[in-house]
Amino acid sequence: MRLFICGFGTVGQGFAEVLESRKAFFEQRYGTQPVIVGIMDSKTYAVDEKGLDPLAMVERKGTTRKVGDREYTDSVKVLDSVDYDLLVEVSPTDIKTGGVGLINITHALETGKDVITVNKGPLALKFQELIALAKANRCKFRFEGSVGGAMPIINLCRENLMGEEIQSVRGILNGTCNFILSKMDKGQPFEQALREAQEMGYAETDPTNDIEGYDTACKVVILANSVFGRNVTFSDVKITGITSITEEAISMAASRNMVIRLIGEVSETALEVSPRLIPKGHPLALTGTLNIAQITTDLAGPVTVSGRGAGRKETASAILSDLISIMDERL
Amino acid sequence: MRLFICGFGTVGQGFAEVLESRKAFFEQRYGTQPVIVGIMDSKTYAVDEKGLDPLAMVERKGTTRKVGDREYTDSVKVLDSVDYDLLVEVSPTDIKTGGVGLINITHALETGKDVITVNKGPLALKFQELIALAKANRCKFRFEGSVGGAMPIINLCRENLMGEEIQSVRGILNGTCNFILSKMDKGQPFEQALREAQEMGYAETDPTNDIEGYDTACKVVILANSVFGRNVTFSDVKITGITSITEEAISMAASRNMVIRLIGEVSETALEVSPRLIPKGHPLALTGTLNIAQITTDLAGPVTVSGRGAGRKETASAILSDLISIMDERL
Repeated sequence: MRLFICGFGTVGQGFAEVLESRKAFFEQRYGTQPVIVGIMDSKTYAVDEKGLDPLAMVERKGTTRKVGDREYTDSVKVLDSVDYDLLVEVSPTDIKTGGVGLINITHALETGKDVITVNKGPLALKFQELIALAKANRCKFRFEGSVGGAMPIINLCRENLMGEEIQSVRGILNGTCNFILSKMDKGQPFEQALREAQEMGYAETDPTNDIEGYDTACKVVILANSVFGRNVTFSDVKITGITSITEEAISMAASRNMVIRLIGEVSETALEVSPRLIPKGHPLALTGTLNIAQITTDLAGPVTVSGRGAGRKETASAILSDLISIMDERL
Repeated sequence: MRLFICGFGTVGQGFAEVLESRKAFFEQRYGTQPVIVGIMDSKTYAVDEKGLDPLAMVERKGTTRKVGDREYTDSVKVLDSVDYDLLVEVSPTDIKTGGVGLINITHALETGKDVITVNKGPLALKFQELIALAKANRCKFRFEGSVGGAMPIINLCRENLMGEEIQSVRGILNGTCNFILSKMDKGQPFEQALREAQEMGYAETDPTNDIEGYDTACKVVILANSVFGRNVTFSDVKITGITSITEEAISMAASRNMVIRLIGEVSETALEVSPRLIPKGHPLALTGTLNIAQITTDLAGPVTVSGRGAGRKETASAILSDLISIMDERL
């Protein structure tokens, strides 16, 4: 299995490290190792048919800020410059246009490559088109890490709960917002809680995507399309973020033994992101940066799952899980 | 796919009903229906190569208390009396000898049949022997519903989390005990809480297996063998039940902002069932009859799952999930 990794930031590097750490696992399970034959970051790339050394590439990126010594302008030409079987697309997400991620995934599928991605933009904008493309070209296309990071949710719904009629999925799908709301529960004003989230590295310098609910909305779209078979995109989601939640609202909720949480909800008809009042003690009254999802089914009843929604090795672990599924199917 | 159902109590009947309710699903996914060619309860049986009507059999069992009009003494002869592909073994569990369930599963595997079971006795006593038998005869052998009912746990660990090093699984795996402990939190003495559990149908007339921790111990053994690849049986588990938990202990815990919960824990080295002090607000401080499991992994970190640990359609849903996996592999 020859891999091309597009995007070599935290997640791409984490995945390279995880691949290295699982050498014995792959050897035992498949008698062979996946090989990285290409990596590109936003400006440079490196390719080697015989395989790049994952840890050396991480080291190089860390010291030079560049993964390769060749620069490129057209990512598609880079992809075409080496034979590979599977694209791992983990470049920065662009929820307006889908960005280079959409271009790379589309090209990979068109040329018959399997794809694993955690890139929410392309999935939130062109889900059904990408699924159709994968089907037409008989490619595997998986994206477990795009929702909930290391929390199993997409494959759980589509595989383990395959025989269920899933009625709804509701959850906390953005750890940054939940960190901020948890801090506000303790009396911090929004701005201070946001600043702390930024200092801790949970929120980006421009926190818009998180706090306006856009990130959660992307995940809701991915769940709607992948779990409920709907055909919706980002613009179909009714979105309210957390920026207008006041200290007064938080204390009013507390006086009724409730907390406010940013909940994404999807069902056959619902497609919404909004702050909601949740009773203390309820599973969705979760505190901190974890993600959680409540899946309501007709036979199994409610199934709840929680886990780390982000993180270097956590997101890499979701990619690994998809990779193993694809390699198993090739056995 | 021709099924033989052994055991036609709540779970067997629930599974028959679920099969019927999923006709359209099977038709769409496989272009064919699984057919029940045989059912036996503890004394009688019915076989029909062309297929038994699931709902008629449930009706018959309800009105006559017998699933068939033929009586039997040797279940193995009954199994051999009809061609089938897969045994669904859901007869009452016997955690001392494995009972008729062990005999049926062993015979089915020896004769090359796939097996799905939720019967804890055989799994807790002869796990590695049964796995070896399945392997030698190239049979599929699945048992998702034996731990946590409708809560996905075994397949979650073995499939979704396949690439992880799972370090431990800790959880509440018996809803009856948790119901009793939740009532005791509110000031009820043990005997009264147990009586209420019996009145609600959560506890059996002889509640020993639940309250002494034996049921949880069986589940811990199944997890140890299936998730951690250990080779342990029921007698290897260090077991303390909940019968000696006093009202004083509960209020002492409450004064420290803790609750007492019966926790099963398994890892490479641990194999234990015991009441433990859990801080209020901790996921394992769960109230009511749900099951919950915390899975600790090296990459994904902690993954927590909860769901209904028992129930007619809930347990049937776990069997359905295993059946779909097996039918998918035959595609």
